[in-house]
Amino acid sequence: MTLAHGRPYLAIPGPSVMPDRVLNAMHQPAPNIYEGALLDMVAGLAPDLKAVARTSGHVAIYIANGHGAWEAAANNTLRPGEKVLVLVTGRFGAGWGEVFTRQGVEVQAIDFGKRATVDPAQLEAALAADAAHEIKAVAVVHVDTATSVKNDIAAVRAVMDRLGHPALLMVDCIASLAVDRFEMDAWGVDVMVAASQKGLMTPPGLGFVFFNDKAAARQVESPSFYWDWGPRANPAMFYQYFGGTAPTHHLLGLRAALDMIAEEGGIEAVWARHEKLARAAWAAFEAWGQEGRLELNIADPALRAHAVTALRIGGDDGSRLRAWVEQKAGLTLGIGLGMAEPDDPAWHGFFRLGHMGHINAHMMMGALGVIEAGFVALGIPHGKGALAAAAAVIAEA
Amino acid sequence: MTLAHGRPYLAIPGPSVMPDRVLNAMHQPAPNIYEGALLDMVAGLAPDLKAVARTSGHVAIYIANGHGAWEAAANNTLRPGEKVLVLVTGRFGAGWGEVFTRQGVEVQAIDFGKRATVDPAQLEAALAADAAHEIKAVAVVHVDTATSVKNDIAAVRAVMDRLGHPALLMVDCIASLAVDRFEMDAWGVDVMVAASQKGLMTPPGLGFVFFNDKAAARQVESPSFYWDWGPRANPAMFYQYFGGTAPTHHLLGLRAALDMIAEEGGIEAVWARHEKLARAAWAAFEAWGQEGRLELNIADPALRAHAVTALRIGGDDGSRLRAWVEQKAGLTLGIGLGMAEPDDPAWHGFFRLGHMGHINAHMMMGALGVIEAGFVALGIPHGKGALAAAAAVIAEA
Amino acid sequence: MTLAHGRPYLAIPGPSVMPDRVLNAMHQPAPNIYEGALLDMVAGLAPDLKAVARTSGHVAIYIANGHGAWEAAANNTLRPGEKVLVLVTGRFGAGWGEVFTRQGVEVQAIDFGKRATVDPAQLEAALAADAAHEIKAVAVVHVDTATSVKNDIAAVRAVMDRLGHPALLMVDCIASLAVDRFEMDAWGVDVMVAASQKGLMTPPGLGFVFFNDKAAARQVESPSFYWDWGPRANPAMFYQYFGGTAPTHHLLGLRAALDMIAEEGGIEAVWARHEKLARAAWAAFEAWGQEGRLELNIADPALRAHAVTALRIGGDDGSRLRAWVEQKAGLTLGIGLGMAEPDDPAWHGFFRLGHMGHINAHMMMGALGVIEAGFVALGIPHGKGALAAAAAVIAEA
Amino acid sequence: MTLAHGRPYLAIPGPSVMPDRVLNAMHQPAPNIYEGALLDMVAGLAPDLKAVARTSGHVAIYIANGHGAWEAAANNTLRPGEKVLVLVTGRFGAGWGEVFTRQGVEVQAIDFGKRATVDPAQLEAALAADAAHEIKAVAVVHVDTATSVKNDIAAVRAVMDRLGHPALLMVDCIASLAVDRFEMDAWGVDVMVAASQKGLMTPPGLGFVFFNDKAAARQVESPSFYWDWGPRANPAMFYQYFGGTAPTHHLLGLRAALDMIAEEGGIEAVWARHEKLARAAWAAFEAWGQEGRLELNIADPALRAHAVTALRIGGDDGSRLRAWVEQKAGLTLGIGLGMAEPDDPAWHGFFRLGHMGHINAHMMMGALGVIEAGFVALGIPHGKGALAAAAAVIAEA
Repeated sequence: MTLAHGRPYLAIPGPSVMPDRVLNAMHQPAPNIYEGALLDMVAGLAPDLKAVARTSGHVAIYIANGHGAWEAAANNTLRPGEKVLVLVTGRFGAGWGEVFTRQGVEVQAIDFGKRATVDPAQLEAALAADAAHEIKAVAVVHVDTATSVKNDIAAVRAVMDRLGHPALLMVDCIASLAVDRFEMDAWGVDVMVAASQKGLMTPPGLGFVFFNDKAAARQVESPSFYWDWGPRANPAMFYQYFGGTAPTHHLLGLRAALDMIAEEGGIEAVWARHEKLARAAWAAFEAWGQEGRLELNIADPALRAHAVTALRIGGDDGSRLRAWVEQKAGLTLGIGLGMAEPDDPAWHGFFRLGHMGHINAHMMMGALGVIEAGFVALGIPHGKGALAAAAAVIAEA
Repeated sequence: MTLAHGRPYLAIPGPSVMPDRVLNAMHQPAPNIYEGALLDMVAGLAPDLKAVARTSGHVAIYIANGHGAWEAAANNTLRPGEKVLVLVTGRFGAGWGEVFTRQGVEVQAIDFGKRATVDPAQLEAALAADAAHEIKAVAVVHVDTATSVKNDIAAVRAVMDRLGHPALLMVDCIASLAVDRFEMDAWGVDVMVAASQKGLMTPPGLGFVFFNDKAAARQVESPSFYWDWGPRANPAMFYQYFGGTAPTHHLLGLRAALDMIAEEGGIEAVWARHEKLARAAWAAFEAWGQEGRLELNIADPALRAHAVTALRIGGDDGSRLRAWVEQKAGLTLGIGLGMAEPDDPAWHGFFRLGHMGHINAHMMMGALGVIEAGFVALGIPHGKGALAAAAAVIAEA
Repeated sequence: MTLAHGRPYLAIPGPSVMPDRVLNAMHQPAPNIYEGALLDMVAGLAPDLKAVARTSGHVAIYIANGHGAWEAAANNTLRPGEKVLVLVTGRFGAGWGEVFTRQGVEVQAIDFGKRATVDPAQLEAALAADAAHEIKAVAVVHVDTATSVKNDIAAVRAVMDRLGHPALLMVDCIASLAVDRFEMDAWGVDVMVAASQKGLMTPPGLGFVFFNDKAAARQVESPSFYWDWGPRANPAMFYQYFGGTAPTHHLLGLRAALDMIAEEGGIEAVWARHEKLARAAWAAFEAWGQEGRLELNIADPALRAHAVTALRIGGDDGSRLRAWVEQKAGLTLGIGLGMAEPDDPAWHGFFRLGHMGHINAHMMMGALGVIEAGFVALGIPHGKGALAAAAAVIAEA
Repeated sequence: MTLAHGRPYLAIPGPSVMPDRVLNAMHQPAPNIYEGALLDMVAGLAPDLKAVARTSGHVAIYIANGHGAWEAAANNTLRPGEKVLVLVTGRFGAGWGEVFTRQGVEVQAIDFGKRATVDPAQLEAALAADAAHEIKAVAVVHVDTATSVKNDIAAVRAVMDRLGHPALLMVDCIASLAVDRFEMDAWGVDVMVAASQKGLMTPPGLGFVFFNDKAAARQVESPSFYWDWGPRANPAMFYQYFGGTAPTHHLLGLRAALDMIAEEGGIEAVWARHEKLARAAWAAFEAWGQEGRLELNIADPALRAHAVTALRIGGDDGSRLRAWVEQKAGLTLGIGLGMAEPDDPAWHGFFRLGHMGHINAHMMMGALGVIEAGFVALGIPHGKGALAAAAAVIAEA
């Protein structure tokens, strides 16, 4: 039998759960894109996006996914032949590097593995070795959804400042914006990349590049028409916001999502909610891990993302668990992306729980509850008291 | 802080959670009510409704809520001055009696209290005393959402048969249809009343009266135009289905809901899901009840509804818990309807968990999880291991 | 080929076109019906409904269609055996009479045919003959959607006043509320019946009974539980508003519709729009009628409804036209209800154009435009200049 | 007063009217992007898109608007320093040229003005002068929404073939796909660019590049990651379809739109509908133009698009008319894009009527009807009989 017939819960690390209010806002006739209400509404998006990103800089909105936003950031800042230092802490760091390469940019990568954050010492060594300042940018992912590691961006900036290195600091916050604390200006981030479908609770289809005046000043002479962040961030005519036709329905959805963030109490409240929910999940996973093979991919809580938790469980228990909770209980977990290749048997020993965006205590406790049921049903050894431990964290709210 | 910002879960005992698919089906332009697709669609509703009710009899659909369906059942079957025997096991039994009274029907009530089912012995005594067969109908609620008691309808019929009493057996399945096993024909039920907003997963606004040939034969000469079940169940013209304008959008929603029931595997699969989920809830409540004051209103599991569970917790803990889980965790529990008056301090010592309709294991485990969090947060004493116990029941799926 | 693939326009005389905003408002999770936002919202409906009805009296909201509202009005005001004078100007007048009859009320009907309004002289004669004041109520339809006649309600009241007859004046505004000017208090109407699916732009499923203090004072001792307007109009507890479970989603839709009326500029603006659009339609129909057989059912413009226009065209031209515009052009016209029986060949010589509720100049000109195309395509003789004549009326806006 | 309160009709040349069915299909929870139903659905899109484009080639879907699709086409086919011959027949031809330029491609443009199609003789002269075959591609817009001109693509190919010129033929069908007849393979088109928000009836946010094997063979070594059409058209892994996260909700909408095209009878039926509706519009505009200053921008019907009609009316009559029909009648017309600058008084002498996608006879006749009303209201001279003339065209259906 199955107990899945009810509202399914998609707990993959993005797209996240779309709020009914966002979907409702998108269920509208097409608006006029030359005059009227849409134009006024769009003018109000940038200030609210910048408040979420904690910056007084600029924001360009792209009709694109996160990969498009990566390319936009690369296209505006680096000329073919210039060098970027990419700090890799999982699949998405490597992915950004590939985008740079395709733009003709020389990529110098440091790989910190799949279970660790950036090591400041290695970073410092690499930058110190660059006496000629050939490295024009340092690119790092704030939260890597594959590993669920969270990098300390302020620490990266501190290394750069200590060395007086002039490179731009470029950060991928696709998985972390409006989830994990991120302070663009205070942390000295020059360029930041995000997308709509995670913390911003809007269907996939919008990418964002935030940039400060330093980055604007460094812009290459002639980026591509589509990626050029200049007119998008500071349009003279409305169509320039989007380099052509506006993504009307996504904008309606994004407006609703930003309103929801404001009504919750602003970005600090959103961060606090995600932190507490993540801690509840960790409490459960740590308790289960007391017996059997379950293990959080990132051991140190200080280095864990609040957006997603990657788990190692070994054998084929990851795939079996995912199948059970989806078919029996209405919960869809994420695959263990980037930990092994899909045709490698080890692939089946991983899974991830997404907990970003429109998520509350009920959804989290439900996810944990059916994971425990799955462990029991499948005979997967696990420690006791996990759900009570999670509930105790929720109780602190 | 609050952890409620996510998809809220309304776990009151009706209206239940409306499936996205039902809401989507209702988001349509108004259809033609004189010709076309709507007419064909409506013709297919009755067979599917009767399959859900396990009857080969008739069904009349009313634009009304459950109270309207009560009135429809009364209006068709009993003349002013005739007598009905009402078996009261909670607020809704009493409510139906009031509707009969307003129709001029004489009501003889037996009250079995708020924590027990119909006692066959008392019923037998009452019927045996009616040698003249002045009692024309016996009315009983299958599941009373106030007390969460479930009556044994087959047992009621057995008493009537044993005595050869010719009264109609009329059953209120508003809370139980498509939730708890109900066999209209096999159990000898003559008239059954239901509504859209619980197991049928459609917004409030439709009432149903199912009736067999015996009840049809007994129909009073001229029931009211609106309540007359004859043309509704066997219309010569389309508008007679609904005694006037069809409830177009509700019908679209109902069609989707009936499709969902069929796709789940039919009514047996739906019953099995509800039973398992109810048992998971009971396992948690029983474990919590090992310490402190929490108590299931209905002690005997065999007498408990699968649609809702009524709890007694005392003091103001019921109201405090309801407030906490709603404001902090995104879960709305039901008030303790009918257990005390709202201005009585005892009012605050009750709550209910609805678990009917579009509910899966994730939703149930989430509800239980945040209830435990609420107990912890509010310092309400409770037994340990409740969530694990619930998960173990889910694991049987 | 067909040119129908686009947004279809349903121009039947109800249900009318549902605004996207209303459908959107209904596309929501089920709300709590015991506490919270829904309760506050519902409290605000009555004042706005009364503003639309131009009354300071009371309003009871029913989960029902218009036939249910008819029955509610009858059930509260007239005892079995009492007499009502029903003024019949089409199918719906006769229909209301049938509802009274089924309640045991004695119906005295005056039939004014299908092409005329109430004749004050005949009314005066009937009332004058009732020296004993056995007639307890006079019931009349404001606008009959079958004939598209509009009765002069103030004139009916004037006759009653002139004779000092104490009967209640009961008016059916199902098709006219929020369409044609209606002044409940100023015109001396005691009871008024309406429904959601026409001028109120909300799916079928809500009926309304407005009543003044005189009618309230005359209420029968114990109307049925479901129809009793007392608790609905003046509830002590929330559930009494709806005699049980609230029609949650319809209420959300109705709220949006009432907001739209207010934002348009209030009921006077809504009336003015409907009048102008109706006059545009008449201009076209009159021009077409200069050749061929097309004829407006109601000759005198002062007696025509602003909600719907009934046409006579003879032969099978009505049915042919309806089929052509629906299949070829995306317009659904109304059948000629009540003019002939469906199995009478004459049935096919009628059609109706609904123009109530959410309708603007574009929709009206489109309807008229494709009707002309249909005339041309089908070789139906018709006068020239009709569309230009209609456009000239629209130009007065 | 205003007669605009009803369903507004947005008749700008894109975004077009979104069908309720498309919006409904998009009103869904986020689907899993790693497994399940979405993956199967996406695999079925390409065949249906190619059927609409009449090609057996390849299609790459981009999260982008039409400008993004332009850039994708340029990025895959032309190296910096290579030459493209751009045939300009309005704003959009020029716009595509700008995108090429920004990619470092040398643009040779021939401007045919704003009221004419490509002149084969000029094209032939330009190609003949390119004996060295430095021109690697010829780029032309099929339908320019600014001028409403439609170019004869087969004629362009004929010139190229006659000269044996090896350049790629690249066509922008953003405004014409699923509107005007377009035969990619039969007409020898190598690369074709389109977008979702016009004939494909899906909100802005998807761009498409169709290409044949010849174009694939010519692909530059390493186009940008995001624009690379290779993996998108022939993905080894699902995420490659979209170069990262799939645009989940747009895909659901596109699926519904493609289903609607199939159900209408396929692309031939869609083309026939658009042609007839365009001819109805032209009949009206030509009749109005018999008096006063109104003039179709493209004189020769054979050169007019079926997607949009650009009008010249002079003075400020364009802006006055647009304002009147929007505020009074619920119709939004397009501005006269590209005919003059917005700060030039001449700007106000133009307007456009979009008639692409989800449009039927009712919508078209309504648009024409209220335009006539606007002429009357504003005292703008115009010929008589326009609406009757349009209706006569519709009658041919």
